[in-house]
Amino acid sequence: MTANTPTAKTDPRPVILTGDRPTGPLHLGHFVGSLKSRVALQDSHKQYVLLADTQAMTDNAHDPDKVRRNVLEVALDYLAVGIDPAKTTITVQSHLPALAELTLMYLNFVTVARLERNPTIKEEIQARGFGRDIPAGFLCYPASQAADITGFKAVLVPVGEDQAPLIEQTNEIVRRINHQVGRDVLPEAAALIPKHGRLPGVDGKAKMSKSLGNAIPLGASPEQIKEAVHRMYTDPNHLKVSDPGQVEGNVVFTYLDAFDPNVEEVTELKDHYRRGGLGDMVLKRRVEGILQEMLRPIRERREELAKDPGYVFEILRKGTAEARELTQQTLEEVRDALGMFSFPR
Amino acid sequence: MTANTPTAKTDPRPVILTGDRPTGPLHLGHFVGSLKSRVALQDSHKQYVLLADTQAMTDNAHDPDKVRRNVLEVALDYLAVGIDPAKTTITVQSHLPALAELTLMYLNFVTVARLERNPTIKEEIQARGFGRDIPAGFLCYPASQAADITGFKAVLVPVGEDQAPLIEQTNEIVRRINHQVGRDVLPEAAALIPKHGRLPGVDGKAKMSKSLGNAIPLGASPEQIKEAVHRMYTDPNHLKVSDPGQVEGNVVFTYLDAFDPNVEEVTELKDHYRRGGLGDMVLKRRVEGILQEMLRPIRERREELAKDPGYVFEILRKGTAEARELTQQTLEEVRDALGMFSFPR
Repeated sequence: MTANTPTAKTDPRPVILTGDRPTGPLHLGHFVGSLKSRVALQDSHKQYVLLADTQAMTDNAHDPDKVRRNVLEVALDYLAVGIDPAKTTITVQSHLPALAELTLMYLNFVTVARLERNPTIKEEIQARGFGRDIPAGFLCYPASQAADITGFKAVLVPVGEDQAPLIEQTNEIVRRINHQVGRDVLPEAAALIPKHGRLPGVDGKAKMSKSLGNAIPLGASPEQIKEAVHRMYTDPNHLKVSDPGQVEGNVVFTYLDAFDPNVEEVTELKDHYRRGGLGDMVLKRRVEGILQEMLRPIRERREELAKDPGYVFEILRKGTAEARELTQQTLEEVRDALGMFSFPR
Repeated sequence: MTANTPTAKTDPRPVILTGDRPTGPLHLGHFVGSLKSRVALQDSHKQYVLLADTQAMTDNAHDPDKVRRNVLEVALDYLAVGIDPAKTTITVQSHLPALAELTLMYLNFVTVARLERNPTIKEEIQARGFGRDIPAGFLCYPASQAADITGFKAVLVPVGEDQAPLIEQTNEIVRRINHQVGRDVLPEAAALIPKHGRLPGVDGKAKMSKSLGNAIPLGASPEQIKEAVHRMYTDPNHLKVSDPGQVEGNVVFTYLDAFDPNVEEVTELKDHYRRGGLGDMVLKRRVEGILQEMLRPIRERREELAKDPGYVFEILRKGTAEARELTQQTLEEVRDALGMFSFPR
């Protein structure tokens, strides 16, 4: 760690841990849900962003190649949207052995029954159709998340509302360990729930997702953007331009609310649409224009960066070296506090 | 690794992995069950002995101090019985991060249902009275054992018959990974079941165990040995010296079979005992004499070594450094074979 790198020790700013499973390039949903706020928070907070490739393996063990490739893709997305490696530490989970060691330790402080009761895990087991054939690593991933959060001594973790139980699970482990050692060796963390709701897919489904085919990737070409906006779900009963239309659940308006800086005009457009006389095409052209303008510089930066993967890997390498030192230090603190074996110094 | 250290790469001898959970000093049961054969195997095999303190945490998370203290105690036992650090690599599990990383990876290649079906785990869950409140780490420890065995690329693992399912579990993971990558990146391992059965406790219970209070520690004082032999379970119906006595299940004879070099005399003593006219005291004196003679040099070496823990830690440090390099190399081979992320070199 160089002298001018901000560290948890000397840096008074609250520590945030956030990150993504690198299973595909990021899209507009990530931009609205997390990336924008990361860019906003990176001055006021000491922010660590974890490329969670170890965690991605818990449900992608059959396809590690997909995970590997997407480490670079997601890193490109980060840098393209303005996450600044001089302010935010970007790091690769699989190269932080202390996190694996903390995970194994934490698994001893949580019961199987407790993991199975975790609502997030329950839902995801259902969503993935795992049943009893759930990989053990998947059941255990809350302990891995606890290792991530505590390894960085994060006190704030931006998560969707559905993931709040994972923070509670982390804090339970933290409290068990702090109680056992009789002092606060680890801090508890708070969930930072985003103000903006989730951006729906262009098809109107609640979740934008690459696998659902309803996503607009951050690196989308002008044609991809045009095509995606064209497919946007509006009001299926709004057949003629003169018909009154419904604004609620109309993806075009959701996107205008999310991205159009001119709130007043959007309000007028909504009224007009409700009254009738405003066609979907007009609105879609407006949405497309806004998205094209917003995504162009991101795409261009992304393309520029993609020409020099060595530069991107160097950023990851540097962030990972810093994170390696920090998480190793946490591991040693926890071990010492618990009274585990270490070689005499 | 220095040039003259035997390594798996250059050493043609078959690799053995063995070890103990450091939860108490070792006893005569360990001596008969494993330590003697480790001493015998260390010339013909490349032997790694693992002080499995990480695994000991899976059911001792409430008392890490016990585990920590016993790392040294068990190491003293190893050296005292003649495990030679110039031939055998003694290493501390908690200081081999690659094993933690392999464990997490392997958890993705085994289902929760499969772990729960493991007969060894089932029995131990019952024995420890865990029920549904089993620590997750305990359910997962077969993956940790798979990491140990494969991390050292061991092809032979000395285990009791009851532990053979754990080797099968390891091989299942190995086959899944080898199948996925299309070549044998990891070797399968075979269980090395000891010829000698288990030494019963002095009270006649099948298992000698510190917690059952029926064990003779390897460092036992002459008085402790005397007292333990005095308590030895014989034939409860053999009340008078002149009564015929039963040899089967009579711990004194089990110990004579195990430790008396004079097989002929032991056969005569058995016949005499069966006929009647041979008192328990005569036999116990004989057993005591043999044990005193056998354990004296072990105790003395142990006491001598205990005066210089720095020397013992240096042996562990050296063995752990060698093992660290080897297990890290295995981890990288498995990762590369699976196609996981690594920084460009």
